[in-house]
Amino acid sequence: MHDRAVGRGPRVVVVGAGFAGLAVVTGLRRTRARVLLIDRHPYHTFQPLLYQVATAGLNPGDVAFPARTLVRRGGRADFRQGRLTAVDWAARQVELADHGRVAYDYLVLAFGATTNYLGVAGAEQHGLPIYTLDDALAVRRRMFGSLERASAFGSDHGELTVVVVGGGATGIEMAGTLAELRAATLARDYPRLDAARARVVLVERRDHLLAGFPERLRRYALSALARRGVEVRLGESVARVGATEVVLGSGAVIPAGLVVWAAGVGADPLAGRLGCPQGPGGRICVGPDLRLADEPAVFVAGDLAAALGPDGAPLPQLAQPAIQMGRHIAAQIARLSQGGTTEPFRYRDRGIMATIGRRAAVAELSGGLQLTGTVAWVAWLGLHLVTLLGTRNRLSVLLNWAWRYLAWRRGSRVIVGG
Amino acid sequence: MHDRAVGRGPRVVVVGAGFAGLAVVTGLRRTRARVLLIDRHPYHTFQPLLYQVATAGLNPGDVAFPARTLVRRGGRADFRQGRLTAVDWAARQVELADHGRVAYDYLVLAFGATTNYLGVAGAEQHGLPIYTLDDALAVRRRMFGSLERASAFGSDHGELTVVVVGGGATGIEMAGTLAELRAATLARDYPRLDAARARVVLVERRDHLLAGFPERLRRYALSALARRGVEVRLGESVARVGATEVVLGSGAVIPAGLVVWAAGVGADPLAGRLGCPQGPGGRICVGPDLRLADEPAVFVAGDLAAALGPDGAPLPQLAQPAIQMGRHIAAQIARLSQGGTTEPFRYRDRGIMATIGRRAAVAELSGGLQLTGTVAWVAWLGLHLVTLLGTRNRLSVLLNWAWRYLAWRRGSRVIVGG
Repeated sequence: MHDRAVGRGPRVVVVGAGFAGLAVVTGLRRTRARVLLIDRHPYHTFQPLLYQVATAGLNPGDVAFPARTLVRRGGRADFRQGRLTAVDWAARQVELADHGRVAYDYLVLAFGATTNYLGVAGAEQHGLPIYTLDDALAVRRRMFGSLERASAFGSDHGELTVVVVGGGATGIEMAGTLAELRAATLARDYPRLDAARARVVLVERRDHLLAGFPERLRRYALSALARRGVEVRLGESVARVGATEVVLGSGAVIPAGLVVWAAGVGADPLAGRLGCPQGPGGRICVGPDLRLADEPAVFVAGDLAAALGPDGAPLPQLAQPAIQMGRHIAAQIARLSQGGTTEPFRYRDRGIMATIGRRAAVAELSGGLQLTGTVAWVAWLGLHLVTLLGTRNRLSVLLNWAWRYLAWRRGSRVIVGG
Repeated sequence: MHDRAVGRGPRVVVVGAGFAGLAVVTGLRRTRARVLLIDRHPYHTFQPLLYQVATAGLNPGDVAFPARTLVRRGGRADFRQGRLTAVDWAARQVELADHGRVAYDYLVLAFGATTNYLGVAGAEQHGLPIYTLDDALAVRRRMFGSLERASAFGSDHGELTVVVVGGGATGIEMAGTLAELRAATLARDYPRLDAARARVVLVERRDHLLAGFPERLRRYALSALARRGVEVRLGESVARVGATEVVLGSGAVIPAGLVVWAAGVGADPLAGRLGCPQGPGGRICVGPDLRLADEPAVFVAGDLAAALGPDGAPLPQLAQPAIQMGRHIAAQIARLSQGGTTEPFRYRDRGIMATIGRRAAVAELSGGLQLTGTVAWVAWLGLHLVTLLGTRNRLSVLLNWAWRYLAWRRGSRVIVGG
């Protein structure tokens, strides 16, 4: 009530401009809250399409949206580029790198996750993740760099081989796209190279792909990858990643010029440094209303939060849970700032999707309806197009997709800063 | 004749995938020449639009075109990514970094120029050129980085001020676009910043802008820049460039957060290392047919060649002369390989253009027709759109321009790898 008394809303600091943080900002638009969004980058990254930047199907600008344009829409919200270093719980202030301090009435931690190398030797050193925009561009540079070197000097070892570690959605999307890139581009643009030697190997330690998807969709994904010439190694763990090869648990050695690490994400180590209670994967433990147990003014959302689903298991680190958590938190802050109490968060599973490539995808919608092939693929394209931020980005992505899937060509195959 | 005897065309090595090198490759398409194009980057850069990448109006991918897609069109031509380190004139071989050696029957040197810092203290260290794609992205990062820092921590010195050194086409295009970016974006996206303090200063040591353009067009450009709030300092040299300021010859000090160095280009130092005779600006001296005097199998083209125009002065380092030189060289190689002799190069001046901003440009067409304002601007847009390589790039640029000039917004304002 105090807020209303002085005629100003509570100061809400949101750390992280991902799906969760954005949902908080959007959800507080029509309230009197004074929102400050903080992120290391001045833009929101549409992570579901990063693998297409990595495979040169999209421009980096297509999957990034200026955070300032975004907060501006709210009117009252503001943005600051900065890196969170600590939280002064007592003083209710966040500390940013280079000595910035910002006071809050409510704090939302949504700075996401980082790549989880699972303690595999050499993985962090030689494996390339695709979790950030810079990651994706690094993969693109490495990939085309290997092709150019091999084309110039020839190669008898496996520098044309790409090993993708992890058979989740990111892994199969990456592997499938790489296989298509090979089919569509390699023989045509690199006549000196033997496309057959550009292997795409997908390694998954479980005995199936797409954990969390129904059996039928897993089988479809497996066969769709096989049709594209992806060598899928199920039930294989990675023992070591070297500069020029991947050693499997079975002892098998796969020479590789590029290792894409898609074996999962863990919470940002910052979570530990902040002294928050951590659960599975280092994610921060939260109460049913997504607040920290002993910090009633602090919420945690997205990949960072160890929120539990209806089945009692931690929610998958995907866009949908992040968005729903963000919306929930916005609503709770509005309630609290009006003297109300919080409600528990309930996740509504709207379904899951993954695409293997052109006219090949899998989707399970809420209600259990399962889609595969062209139907699922079109649904996937449509969903990602409408959820992508910014009309210009949508048009640009639409243009690039039309170019790629209709004209079957690659436009943005550029190694920026090679 | 020997070539025909064995039924194979001459081996033509073209170093540099700029306008000149591309014109050579294109010109030799219908001949039996076996062309190898070599460049440090795997793409051709459309330099006339780099300043729009630097000002976040275009994606890097929009102004880059894959060299392999390009040579493929010829059928016989090939591409290799590599950096020329030396030429073995006697053995007729070029040496590439990391030990590649390539033999040639005809060699075309077209590796262009590098930024010329004119020996100004601190210029190379603190001034940012926009001659390559990486240059443009560095400018973009620096510019938005300054804005974010100033917005977060405030700024009492001139870190919002951009100083553009050089009043040629590149300089006025950069200054004009920056002024428009300020008007269209700054107040809206950075409410904490005082747009008035984001000065755009253009320094030109001559007493006029656009050397080479007629007086009337120079005056138009000057007033068009003034209307946009660009502070033009004519007859001012730059004495020193510091990390946070520019010191002019007059002693005046301009605090600056970003210094764009557009004061001209000089030949790549490699020209000297190759032992070629060098003329003005370090450009390689060539005979009337663009060959090296004592190397009848070696041609030089583009920014690198000190070719003389009808008026006896060296040709401007622009796309038009480069393209015409490339075409001429292709024709001469075809003649020589059929036992013929070479013809002298004659440059046809098709006119010059420069744009200041939205609906403001200047153009002098061959014949002396002078255009300004919207007409010149539309002509500029059209010319650059049709000369840009790749339909996808054209569509993407068209989309971004429509977005920017009609909707008056910026889509790709992303600091990649900030």
